[in-house]
Amino acid sequence: MIKSVICERLGIEKPLFQGGMAWIADARLAAAVSNAGGLGLISSILGGPEAVRAEIRKAKKLTDKPFGVNVMLADPNAAAVADLVVEEGVGVVTTGAGSPAPYMERWKAAGIRVIPVVASVAYALKMQELGATAVIAEGAESGGHIGDTHTLALLPQILDAVEIPVLAAGGVFDGRSAAAMLLMGACGVQVGTRFLVADECRVHETYKERLIKASDVGTMVTGKSLGDAVRSLKTPFTKKFARMEADPAVTPEEIRVFGTGSLRKAVFDGDLAGGSFLAGEVAGLITRKESAADIVNDIIGGAERLLAGAPHLIV
Amino acid sequence: MIKSVICERLGIEKPLFQGGMAWIADARLAAAVSNAGGLGLISSILGGPEAVRAEIRKAKKLTDKPFGVNVMLADPNAAAVADLVVEEGVGVVTTGAGSPAPYMERWKAAGIRVIPVVASVAYALKMQELGATAVIAEGAESGGHIGDTHTLALLPQILDAVEIPVLAAGGVFDGRSAAAMLLMGACGVQVGTRFLVADECRVHETYKERLIKASDVGTMVTGKSLGDAVRSLKTPFTKKFARMEADPAVTPEEIRVFGTGSLRKAVFDGDLAGGSFLAGEVAGLITRKESAADIVNDIIGGAERLLAGAPHLIV
Repeated sequence: MIKSVICERLGIEKPLFQGGMAWIADARLAAAVSNAGGLGLISSILGGPEAVRAEIRKAKKLTDKPFGVNVMLADPNAAAVADLVVEEGVGVVTTGAGSPAPYMERWKAAGIRVIPVVASVAYALKMQELGATAVIAEGAESGGHIGDTHTLALLPQILDAVEIPVLAAGGVFDGRSAAAMLLMGACGVQVGTRFLVADECRVHETYKERLIKASDVGTMVTGKSLGDAVRSLKTPFTKKFARMEADPAVTPEEIRVFGTGSLRKAVFDGDLAGGSFLAGEVAGLITRKESAADIVNDIIGGAERLLAGAPHLIV
Repeated sequence: MIKSVICERLGIEKPLFQGGMAWIADARLAAAVSNAGGLGLISSILGGPEAVRAEIRKAKKLTDKPFGVNVMLADPNAAAVADLVVEEGVGVVTTGAGSPAPYMERWKAAGIRVIPVVASVAYALKMQELGATAVIAEGAESGGHIGDTHTLALLPQILDAVEIPVLAAGGVFDGRSAAAMLLMGACGVQVGTRFLVADECRVHETYKERLIKASDVGTMVTGKSLGDAVRSLKTPFTKKFARMEADPAVTPEEIRVFGTGSLRKAVFDGDLAGGSFLAGEVAGLITRKESAADIVNDIIGGAERLLAGAPHLIV
């Protein structure tokens, strides 16, 4: 079986994290992934700190395996969530959209493993210096908020720069991409988009159907003019967003207002005109709905078959 | 040693193509790559069809190994180059920036192996239908003109769609990324950016120095507003180009005029204010100048070490 340093450090069976997607990654999805041997993650963006606490407590009932919380640091509730992960005894925290510096000492004192998502070498080095257990090198193939560099180019540059373990995210879908990342030196992978069609995933049926229909050129990036690039499915909403960005008569403030609440409209309402259906470039590879366990086993089982002859990765 | 179907079909030793970069890929570089066991490629954009013919004849003197010509189909000289590759008995043609349909019958009758560069599943299928020997799936990490999807997501989608062999390009730099692509199912890789710092590469010393200095976020994409996205190093030129694109007072025609001849200004003059230093995201991995043979051997040797236990890839 594939084992890596991240399995040992976190006490997980398989080196696979499920992305802690805002408004999406709840106890049900995270527990299903953890029960399948990966690391499930609950998002800090679920409607306020007490909603997050409730999901953490629910996950503890659904699984006795390790799971984590993804703390979105730009969120006004970040400090409150930073406290409650300590209070609730969460073992692993991943972070995004900002620096975890204000919380690192407290988290480390509580024995929490902190694993920031990073999109550049400079940020990876900064996180290593702060005492991160590992980093997740996330290429801009991924869905949601993205950086500038893509996984195949980003991962080796971060691997060369830091000494802590590095996981790969962005463009990881099945045994092929997972095996490729492990072969290149990643200690594990994080998968987001594929879990959107998991049976245990709460997104609206329209969201799942659109992912299944998406082609290899089915996503686009908007928000660059606002300094906030986001990858999502091509929909009436994203096309209108892009037209507003290209129109000099439209102000950034008007665009922001148009985008406010759009992820919730996609997740809960399947609203194609007003919703932002965040998705990575691998959406084109999605062909069906399946259980979270089947997704975990397909990815890791496929990677194990491809790496069967690479004894340094298989124990 | 790593062998794949593309080695057998083309009579090459190593499954590595050197990108046929416009104004750059000449006889000297192509022959050096072919002599090292890869497939060197001469660009069709070197200053007119007779310049291309002269480079082909020069390459025949510099190597007795197979080499090819990359035909840039959007170029007004494409038809003339399409004729002369037949007249000169070139064995392999790669194509980009358009459809090779008008030339396919003639090339195939002449025994030429045609291997188009493709950036989408739809185009890969079209090329298979036209009788291409293989396709090169090129992700948007690469330098120069790019599509929308990146290699780690694009390659498996094209592999799943076509039956002909698929090479991977975009983000391939060393043994790690080459091994990753082969493990995922590619029959070979194409490398462009790294060969820019080859001793045998004609680009200006400033171009090489800038590549060595580039970081993981050292490239940017311009030209999207013109429907012609291009990746290059961040320089005063590209930043000005991006500002012009964002300025509603500047017309597309003015931007095109600003960009005309910019690649030559980078290649021959090292002109940072007026030159377009095309480069892929792997520029950040470049640390030194070296010979083309050292580059080929580092990539393939490194891939062989990583894949040492994968018997289906090593013979």
